[in-house]
Amino acid sequence: MTAEIPEVSGDTGREPGLGRRSLLLRGGLAVGVGAVAGGLGVGVAERASAADTDSLSATEPFWGAHQSGIVTNTQQHTVLAAFDLNTSEKSDVATLLKSWTQLAAEIAAGQTVTVPIYASTSATGDAYADATDASTTDDSLEAYGLGPARLTLTVGFGRSMFVDSSGADRLGISHQLPAALAVLPHFSGDQLTAADSDGDLYLQACADDPQVAFHAVRSIARIAQDVATLRWTQLGFSPSNTGGTPRNLMGFKDGTINSNAHPPTDLDTVLWAGSEGPAWMRGGSYLVYRRIRMALEHWDRLAPTQQEQVIGRQKLNGAPLGASSEFDALDLTAKGSNGQPAIPTTAHVRLAAPQENDGAVIVRRAFSYNNGTTPFVERWPPWRQALEYDAGLLFLGYQKDPRTAFVPMFTKMAEYDALAQFTTHTASAVFAIPPGATGPGDWVGRTLFG
Amino acid sequence: MTAEIPEVSGDTGREPGLGRRSLLLRGGLAVGVGAVAGGLGVGVAERASAADTDSLSATEPFWGAHQSGIVTNTQQHTVLAAFDLNTSEKSDVATLLKSWTQLAAEIAAGQTVTVPIYASTSATGDAYADATDASTTDDSLEAYGLGPARLTLTVGFGRSMFVDSSGADRLGISHQLPAALAVLPHFSGDQLTAADSDGDLYLQACADDPQVAFHAVRSIARIAQDVATLRWTQLGFSPSNTGGTPRNLMGFKDGTINSNAHPPTDLDTVLWAGSEGPAWMRGGSYLVYRRIRMALEHWDRLAPTQQEQVIGRQKLNGAPLGASSEFDALDLTAKGSNGQPAIPTTAHVRLAAPQENDGAVIVRRAFSYNNGTTPFVERWPPWRQALEYDAGLLFLGYQKDPRTAFVPMFTKMAEYDALAQFTTHTASAVFAIPPGATGPGDWVGRTLFG
Repeated sequence: MTAEIPEVSGDTGREPGLGRRSLLLRGGLAVGVGAVAGGLGVGVAERASAADTDSLSATEPFWGAHQSGIVTNTQQHTVLAAFDLNTSEKSDVATLLKSWTQLAAEIAAGQTVTVPIYASTSATGDAYADATDASTTDDSLEAYGLGPARLTLTVGFGRSMFVDSSGADRLGISHQLPAALAVLPHFSGDQLTAADSDGDLYLQACADDPQVAFHAVRSIARIAQDVATLRWTQLGFSPSNTGGTPRNLMGFKDGTINSNAHPPTDLDTVLWAGSEGPAWMRGGSYLVYRRIRMALEHWDRLAPTQQEQVIGRQKLNGAPLGASSEFDALDLTAKGSNGQPAIPTTAHVRLAAPQENDGAVIVRRAFSYNNGTTPFVERWPPWRQALEYDAGLLFLGYQKDPRTAFVPMFTKMAEYDALAQFTTHTASAVFAIPPGATGPGDWVGRTLFG
Repeated sequence: MTAEIPEVSGDTGREPGLGRRSLLLRGGLAVGVGAVAGGLGVGVAERASAADTDSLSATEPFWGAHQSGIVTNTQQHTVLAAFDLNTSEKSDVATLLKSWTQLAAEIAAGQTVTVPIYASTSATGDAYADATDASTTDDSLEAYGLGPARLTLTVGFGRSMFVDSSGADRLGISHQLPAALAVLPHFSGDQLTAADSDGDLYLQACADDPQVAFHAVRSIARIAQDVATLRWTQLGFSPSNTGGTPRNLMGFKDGTINSNAHPPTDLDTVLWAGSEGPAWMRGGSYLVYRRIRMALEHWDRLAPTQQEQVIGRQKLNGAPLGASSEFDALDLTAKGSNGQPAIPTTAHVRLAAPQENDGAVIVRRAFSYNNGTTPFVERWPPWRQALEYDAGLLFLGYQKDPRTAFVPMFTKMAEYDALAQFTTHTASAVFAIPPGATGPGDWVGRTLFG
C-alpha cells in the first residue's frame, strides 16, 4: 500500500510543490493514513500555521558536478558522522553508496525516506519480532513536516578505506589511493582522541533545523546497518543568520577570509581536484576536519584589547588592526604608533593569510560546537585541572591538496600562533570528497566503485 | 569610558527600542568603539540586513511573580547547567544571586553584560596578566548582534545546598529545606551518571538561538568564578516551530498533554508552591530533570504499528488509538475490534494520563538532546554492546510537589510502561525553583537569602 499525501501549504507565498515534505508511506501506518486520507487531516493541516515555514521550505540542489555542502552557504546546524566498514567486498560498498545517494536525494528534496533498511543478522530476540517487516520502517518520521531546511549531505572516503593500519589493501582499491589523502603529521599541541577521529566513510549533514540534520545521519546510518557502523558523530551550530559574518565562541567574527561565505574565484585552482590526481577524484575535494577546543574560561579573562592582539582584528567590527572595516585588506607591513607591526607577528590572521602561505587558500566551513563540560588538562600555565567547557570550533577545511594548504599553514600556526595558547585540537580526520552525482541513476562514489 | 551604541534596526517592522541588543562598553575596546562611534559603523550596520532578525528580536519578560522559562512557550534551544558551591557563607550566595539576577535581566532584554567578574584567587600566571582589568571583559560578545531571541533564565536550588551528603547544614539554611525538595527513589532501570546529575544551583537558559543560550550560561558561570563552579551542562533542542506539537526523536508528537504548550488552568493547584511549604517558596515550583536516552537503533526496527501500541497514539497525526484527532480525549475504556483495550494497558499515554494518576499533572518542558555516539549496554535483550546514539529527551517536569506527581507517576511507568524497553534514564536532578524577582532591586533567591 502506498499513499501520497501532499501537505497543506497554507498562505506562505511559496511556489507550489517547492519545499514541501510529502509523505510516501509504504504500509504499516494504516490507522494514521486512514484518518488523514479520509479527509480529517488534523495532524497535517495544523502545521500549515507554520511560524518558521519559509526558512524551512528552501532546498539546496543535491545533484551536480560537485557535492553540495562545500561552497553552499553555511546552514545553522550540522551533524558530522564517520563510519567504519565491516566488509571486504567492494560490491557491498557500491551497494551502500547507491542506497545512500538515493536516500540523500530524497531527503534533500524534502521527501520522506523510501529506501528500506538492510536485513540485519543481529536482529534477533523478542524486541525485533517485527523487524522483518522492514518496509514499514523506512522513515523514522521525526523530521516529518519540517521541510528540507536547506539540507545538504556530503560523503567522503577516509584513507583507512584504501589501506588499513597494517598497509593491507582492504577492498582492492589501494592503487586508487590519492596522494593528497595524506596522513597528517603530529602538530605541536595536538591532543587527539582516536575514538572521535578518522573513519572509513564520512557523512556531513547540514541543515537549518537540528532535527532535520540528525534525521539525515540517522537515516543514512540505519540503512547501512551491517555494512558500516557509526564510529563517531559530532554536532555543530552557527548563530542565527543576521546578515553579517557570524561570531565564533571567542566573540570574534569568524570567516571573513578563507571561508565558504566568500569563496575565492579560482575554485579549480584551490578547491576542486583536477588532473593532478586519480581520475575518479576529478571535481572532488579534500576535507581536513579538526575539532578545536577553546579555553573559553581563560579567554574570557583576557582583556579584549589583548584578545585583539591575539587575533589581529578588532573584536567589535572585525576590521584588521590598523584598518577600519571588516573587509579591508590585511596590511601586514603597517606599523602602529609604537613602531611595532599593527598586526602582531604572532597574530592569527597574519599566520593564516594567503600572502603568508604561498597563496594557499582553504575554503573553511566552520561551526561552533558545545559538548558540555569535562575535566581537562591545559596546554599552558597554570595547568588547572578543573571542569572546562568542551566547546569551540569545528574546522572543516576544503582544499585541492592538504599537503600544500592545511599542512604547511597549520604547522606554522601550531608553533607560532598566539591563539594556540587558547585552543587545543582534540579530533582530526582527512577525507577525500568525491565528485557529485550528476542526476538520478548516478551515485556518489561511482567513479571509484562503479 | 562608556559608549552607548544603538544598533541600526533596518526595516523589520519592529517596535522601536524593542529587541535590540545595545552595546554598553566599559573600556577596553577603544579601537573598535572609535571606528563605530566615529560614524563608520560597518560592523554594526551590515547586520541590519537581518535574515532572521524578526524571530530574534522578541523578548520574554524577566521580572514577575514567577520565574520565566516554566510556562513560557518552549524555545528552540536550551543549555542546562548545574553548579557546585565553594563557600560556606550564606552572604556569598546572596551576593552571587544578586549579580545573577542583574545579569539575567540585562541579557534577557537583549543588552550586553555589565556585571563584572569576580577577582579570582586562581587567576595567576602569565596567561592572566590582564585579568585584573576585569571591567574590560564584562561581555564575551559572541551573542552580540543576535538579539534577545526570547531568552529566559531560570534559577533553582538543589537539596545539597541545604544539607550536604553527610546531613550537615552547609549554609545555615537547613531549616528552610522544603519537604517537596525530595530525594528521588531509585526507579526500575535507572542508570544514572552522578557527574551529570544533581548540583547545588541550577540554571536553565532557553532561547531561539543556540549561541544566545550558551552565552547566557557562560556569562553566569564567569561572574560566579570562585563562589560556584560548573558541575555539568547539557544542551537540548526542539525542532523548528511549524505551528503544531513538535515531534521527539522517536518520531511521535511530544507534549499533547502534560505540557507547557497546553498548561492546565489550575496552575496554583498543580504548579506553583503555596502555603503548604516554606514561605520563601510561595510562587515557586519544583523541577524534576531526567535525561532519557532512547534506544533509537532498536526503535527504528520496530514497525510503526507496534510503536503506536507502545505509545498509545497514532504516529502520523498524534491521535489517541481509537480516536481521530490529536486533541481528542483519551478514552481508556474503548475496545478495539479484537475486544482488547484500544489503548493497551502498558501504553505510555495510559500510564501518564492524569486520570490514571489521581489527577496528577506535570507541566513538561521537553527538549531533544544529542550527545553523539557512545558505547552502551542495553537494558533489554539482545544486550548488544555497540556504539549507540547518546540521544533522546531532556524531561523538565515542573510541579507543585514531586512526591505526589512525578514520583508515583514514574514509579508505575518505570515498571509497566512499554516505552521503558526503549528508554534509559541516565541523569537526574530535583531543584526548588524559587519565585521570580518582581522588578529592579529585587533578586531571585531574596526570599531565602535576603
